Amino acid sequence: KMLGRVLCTVLFVGALQSLAKASQGHISVVLLGATGDLAKKYLWQGLFQLYMDQVSSGHSFTFHGAALTALEPGQRLMFDVLKKLSCPPDEAPNRCAVLKDQFLKLSQYHQLSTAENYTALSREIEALLHQEGLKEAGRIFYFSVPPFAYTEIAHHINSSCRPPPGAWLRVVLEKPFGHDLESAQQLAAELRGFFREEEMYRVDHYLGKQAVAHILPFRDQNRQFLDPIWNRHHVERVEIVLKETVDAKGRTSFYEQYGVIRDVLQNHLTEALMFLIMELPANVSRAEEVLQHKLQSFQSLWGLEKNSAVLGQYQAYASQVQEELQQAQGYVSTTPTFAGVLIHSDSLRWEGVPFLLTSGKALDERVGYARVLFKNRAYCTQSETLRDAGPSQCKAKQIIFYFGHGALNTPAVLVSRNLFRPVMPKDSWKEVLSQSDLRIFGQPLSDYYVYSPVRERDAYSVLISNIYHGRKDFFITTENLLASWGFWTPLLDSISHQPLRLYPGGMENQHLLDFEMVSGGLAFSLAEPAELLNPTRQMPSDYKAIQTQYRQSPLVSAWSEDLISQLALDMEEAAVRSVARSGQFHLALSGGSSPVILFQRLARHHYTFPWKHTHIWLVDERCVPLTDSESNFFSLHSHLLQSVRVPYFNIHPMPVHLNRRLCVEEDRGTELYAKDIVALVANASFDLVLLGVGTDGHTASLFPRSENGLEGAPTVVLTESPVKPHQRMSLSLPLINKARQVFVLVLGKGKHDITTLLSRVGHEPKKWPISGVSPSSGQLVWYVDYEALLG
Amino acid sequence: KMLGRVLCTVLFVGALQSLAKASQGHISVVLLGATGDLAKKYLWQGLFQLYMDQVSSGHSFTFHGAALTALEPGQRLMFDVLKKLSCPPDEAPNRCAVLKDQFLKLSQYHQLSTAENYTALSREIEALLHQEGLKEAGRIFYFSVPPFAYTEIAHHINSSCRPPPGAWLRVVLEKPFGHDLESAQQLAAELRGFFREEEMYRVDHYLGKQAVAHILPFRDQNRQFLDPIWNRHHVERVEIVLKETVDAKGRTSFYEQYGVIRDVLQNHLTEALMFLIMELPANVSRAEEVLQHKLQSFQSLWGLEKNSAVLGQYQAYASQVQEELQQAQGYVSTTPTFAGVLIHSDSLRWEGVPFLLTSGKALDERVGYARVLFKNRAYCTQSETLRDAGPSQCKAKQIIFYFGHGALNTPAVLVSRNLFRPVMPKDSWKEVLSQSDLRIFGQPLSDYYVYSPVRERDAYSVLISNIYHGRKDFFITTENLLASWGFWTPLLDSISHQPLRLYPGGMENQHLLDFEMVSGGLAFSLAEPAELLNPTRQMPSDYKAIQTQYRQSPLVSAWSEDLISQLALDMEEAAVRSVARSGQFHLALSGGSSPVILFQRLARHHYTFPWKHTHIWLVDERCVPLTDSESNFFSLHSHLLQSVRVPYFNIHPMPVHLNRRLCVEEDRGTELYAKDIVALVANASFDLVLLGVGTDGHTASLFPRSENGLEGAPTVVLTESPVKPHQRMSLSLPLINKARQVFVLVLGKGKHDITTLLSRVGHEPKKWPISGVSPSSGQLVWYVDYEALLG
Repeated sequence: KMLGRVLCTVLFVGALQSLAKASQGHISVVLLGATGDLAKKYLWQGLFQLYMDQVSSGHSFTFHGAALTALEPGQRLMFDVLKKLSCPPDEAPNRCAVLKDQFLKLSQYHQLSTAENYTALSREIEALLHQEGLKEAGRIFYFSVPPFAYTEIAHHINSSCRPPPGAWLRVVLEKPFGHDLESAQQLAAELRGFFREEEMYRVDHYLGKQAVAHILPFRDQNRQFLDPIWNRHHVERVEIVLKETVDAKGRTSFYEQYGVIRDVLQNHLTEALMFLIMELPANVSRAEEVLQHKLQSFQSLWGLEKNSAVLGQYQAYASQVQEELQQAQGYVSTTPTFAGVLIHSDSLRWEGVPFLLTSGKALDERVGYARVLFKNRAYCTQSETLRDAGPSQCKAKQIIFYFGHGALNTPAVLVSRNLFRPVMPKDSWKEVLSQSDLRIFGQPLSDYYVYSPVRERDAYSVLISNIYHGRKDFFITTENLLASWGFWTPLLDSISHQPLRLYPGGMENQHLLDFEMVSGGLAFSLAEPAELLNPTRQMPSDYKAIQTQYRQSPLVSAWSEDLISQLALDMEEAAVRSVARSGQFHLALSGGSSPVILFQRLARHHYTFPWKHTHIWLVDERCVPLTDSESNFFSLHSHLLQSVRVPYFNIHPMPVHLNRRLCVEEDRGTELYAKDIVALVANASFDLVLLGVGTDGHTASLFPRSENGLEGAPTVVLTESPVKPHQRMSLSLPLINKARQVFVLVLGKGKHDITTLLSRVGHEPKKWPISGVSPSSGQLVWYVDYEALLG
Repeated sequence: KMLGRVLCTVLFVGALQSLAKASQGHISVVLLGATGDLAKKYLWQGLFQLYMDQVSSGHSFTFHGAALTALEPGQRLMFDVLKKLSCPPDEAPNRCAVLKDQFLKLSQYHQLSTAENYTALSREIEALLHQEGLKEAGRIFYFSVPPFAYTEIAHHINSSCRPPPGAWLRVVLEKPFGHDLESAQQLAAELRGFFREEEMYRVDHYLGKQAVAHILPFRDQNRQFLDPIWNRHHVERVEIVLKETVDAKGRTSFYEQYGVIRDVLQNHLTEALMFLIMELPANVSRAEEVLQHKLQSFQSLWGLEKNSAVLGQYQAYASQVQEELQQAQGYVSTTPTFAGVLIHSDSLRWEGVPFLLTSGKALDERVGYARVLFKNRAYCTQSETLRDAGPSQCKAKQIIFYFGHGALNTPAVLVSRNLFRPVMPKDSWKEVLSQSDLRIFGQPLSDYYVYSPVRERDAYSVLISNIYHGRKDFFITTENLLASWGFWTPLLDSISHQPLRLYPGGMENQHLLDFEMVSGGLAFSLAEPAELLNPTRQMPSDYKAIQTQYRQSPLVSAWSEDLISQLALDMEEAAVRSVARSGQFHLALSGGSSPVILFQRLARHHYTFPWKHTHIWLVDERCVPLTDSESNFFSLHSHLLQSVRVPYFNIHPMPVHLNRRLCVEEDRGTELYAKDIVALVANASFDLVLLGVGTDGHTASLFPRSENGLEGAPTVVLTESPVKPHQRMSLSLPLINKARQVFVLVLGKGKHDITTLLSRVGHEPKKWPISGVSPSSGQLVWYVDYEALLG
């Protein structure tokens, strides 16, 4: 045993000596998990490629494979892998053979288990370099280990294996990086205890795929063509797709915890999406600028809702899980193996353009691509027969970044010939001129300019090279990671009990997984052919009959999302009726969190709402500037007003901020607002007032035992809230009760107690202000969701 | 001669007698121009059809052909036409023969030339009815005569030939109804002197084409399917097309004055457009509602600009005109024989959807259709080969109203099978189930539900039936006509010197007439292959070198449209720079008419403008309420703010209306505005101030010899204008001069004198306030169009 170790060290030193002349310093690469699958398949080959590429760079290298396995068996396992390293086709065989021999000599196995092991490794490296008279440039630690091992390894590296001052440390981390925002934050916090941000390289191997990595350079080099068309006016849709034919068999213990969204969409497809939608930095080779712009793009994305996704599961999955995870026959998995997700950005550039992300296992073909389809902006005056024959502006226009596999079976960039001839870097991409009669994305291949890489490179080789060069834009920063989880987590939460469409797998899927954009979300095109999976949740129709009255007024009840949809519909109907009657619709809206979802729904789904004739009033306001994020108006503006076209003159924020001070009585804001109402609203009778209810029974900003506003004149009052900000302005109860319609929205478990209580009490506005809402000649309707109603 | 007349009357009376039992009263139809082309080809057949349809309706009929020709030859000419009337295939031959015989007996020729002739006709009708004991129900006068004859005939009918009280008068008018807004107004005014609106039936025979006439009923009967998709979210584009293979040969004396836009687009295609875009009335069979909604749709259309159209002329046209109109060899016609026009509506329903109207002579095929192409909203997960075979949501979705001719050679309604199976009235439309392998609009015919009329009816038959039934929605009301001319006239004016693309005609046109939507307008797809026709206007490039300085500041000059484009670009650049520097862009805008085009351009072409970070200030304001159409802010709001997304908080109208009164000094509006500026704009230095110049040298609302604002503190002032409304609020010159950039926009011939004068004078703000604009540390740029600069 001791002999083996000595022998190995001797070999090692011998090989290094020949490179002692190197002046750039020495780099030690430590591959943790050196005998695992990923290492066998890609990482050692990537390291060998790095060595071949950089052997003359002036740096010297040693490669340290490490695992928990004891020295001798580990050594054997590792060298079995190394012996099989292959020479790339574009490398001279002689040179490669020599380099491979050197690479083997520079590679050494270490058992890394205890703190002492790490200290020993560090000492060995130092001793070696001292002996050889080499300066240390840096150390790369590549974590190819399961995530549960991260913390311990990180701890050991940080405390026992950091390079001396002046040399850098780079730790390379493989996904998964958590399974939701919280766990990702936790993991990030832990890692931050050991490494600085610039020391961490989180791998998403898609960023190393040549067609993905070329998206930004392509956009940069073709600015002249893309500048006018890379926007919502010209782009019809974008599809980002990764279809697999394999299923999860043999990997269900992993897959069952993750599913297709965490496995593919949250990372790979999202990263490709970002490259497509981010604003192009002035200099695309500056990593910080790229990362900054990418983060900004995350900010522009609309939050995902339950109906943003369609989900499926291939039929054999359940039995595979039962078998591999030793679950009972009746075990039902809710893990999706197929997902289509609709994403929208509200940037001026992309507003309204659908981005469709799709991935699944057990599909009919293996292929990955990002496809930008442009709107057809041409009209061809001559008849179709003529048009089909030759080149025509009426044919489809598209740009496709083809990640690989599929009909083309190579990474490629395709640009429709009626679009433009792209500028491509000649040293890395070559034009493909084939006479194939292949059709791709609806057109013969000859309709495109087609480019493929001069040299096809594995993603890991590309990434390892970028780690060596310190190019951080090829990796996922902590901010980027958390932004991505922040975007995906709400969807993951909301779909955890969604029904999945079962699909047979392969060609048999037919049209079963085709889906469509329907009213802001996605839905499968074909009606559900099989029974629903896991219909644990009671359906609204089961409930609807329970009661239809609440406090002697009509009650609408459903799960919150359906309830909001119905409320929005009813509001539009009220608006249309009112505009037909009087030419105007005077709508008074409440603040708080419940209406936010309603506002978003109105903004995104109700384009026939007569906004042009709608006046927006506030039911109540906090005494803060309108631009303060605590302001009710600010929230209303963010979630509704900035997305619809209400004329400026029809928007009536409460004047809580006059003469540069807040709600000072002598500024007479309440009088001013009351006068505006009298001047514009016929009979001061709003067409519709939307209210909420607090857990204490307050409504508007009228709190229990308030001195103002619970009785007396129909007016506007200043009130005091028990919670901050204390000062409020509010419509008074008598003014609210003049309205033609009052809708009260009550959402969530937290409101169950007050909902129950209110169902039993009478008219006691001093105790529960909401109980005083009773329009004198108008209609009151309660919108209460199941959680508030039934707890 | 006398004998002939007597004989004729005898026959006439004999035929009528058998119908004396009719109780609904008698209808006299007078066809003016009874021996002309239209009468021969369509109108007599239409009247015969009316007779066949209505012979049992309870009405009795007589038909009076009339022309200027003397009685005998006229009689002969007319009966030659009548003898050739054909029986429709769905009519029993026996019955038809009998009815034709009766029809001939009921038809009589009259020479109508003098007032006496009209009086005589009226007396004859009265005498006849008296004799037969019939009540008169009404008289129809069908004008199938050239427009120059209208006034005289109308005069005669009105003064000598009106039916007695209790019976109606219907006069039917054939186009042209003027050649622009002014002439149409004039003609309408003249006709109004003779007839009441409800008496006039203006024919657009397209409204009688079965596929056009069915657009509204189709939309009505298929509301359940169309309601969710008949809008900008689902419709990708609409094409309304009338292609002809014939050219204008033999008709150039007419055509040379009208051209394709007046001949086809202003009337036929516009009417089809209206049926497609109008909001659907609750009851589509109520003519008034339909007409009202149609008028509203005209209001929603964006004004057409020069670049909204592409125009062409077939090559042989010039020589045909030279020959037929006896013009010299060098005569150049500027009459378009081909036009493509892009129309936009700013209704919430259609905003952003392109409506393409196209028509031309000497094209490759004869066909007419209105095609609604829906957006592709589906993603098909399975590979293409599978998809192409069967029905799929990924195939194109369209609805086509096929007017006739073309590949189908019948009127038809086509609906893609993946859209819905339409509801069609079974008595009038039948489903066509052919196995033809015809491809139409990119798809095999089998991809559509196809319906054709049970009985194909000529447009004139349909219209004559609707005249009889008093269905005014099948005709063009005066309001409708003027709305249409109001819409088209600005385009007709602006293109009168546009170059036309020459095309060879027929199949040889190839791609020459294909066009594309480019930056808000249209352009031919192929670069101009031939020389420009009539390049009378000097090109901007000829001028640009003249001067680059004006009053010692940079000058940008061009034709107004190009100048506005450049100014808008420069403003966006200033905005982007400012936001990059400070996160905000403070823009102060002037009122007046010149900036309106600029505002529209910014709203429609500059989606990358950083509106979210822009603050909008007013340079000056009239002391009127903000909602008054005279208000500068109101104009700014209509033309810019309602189309872009400037946050509510960033919009700063001048406070001319405080405490419900206008510009009262003690309300301190000027102080308030100045304070807002100081609070929000760093150093009270606007990033960009846009000014104009009045013919008296005023700028902002700073007039010559103004007591306020020309010197002193950088503040906001009240001023007096020499023209109404007199009271104004304005930034002061010193405040304007603190700006980082000031752009002055000067447009139009009317500004030539002041532009010339200002080029010679120095700094004399008391005389010419604009001469006092000189930013202390900012930049001043003049944007002066050629008309203002060169006169």
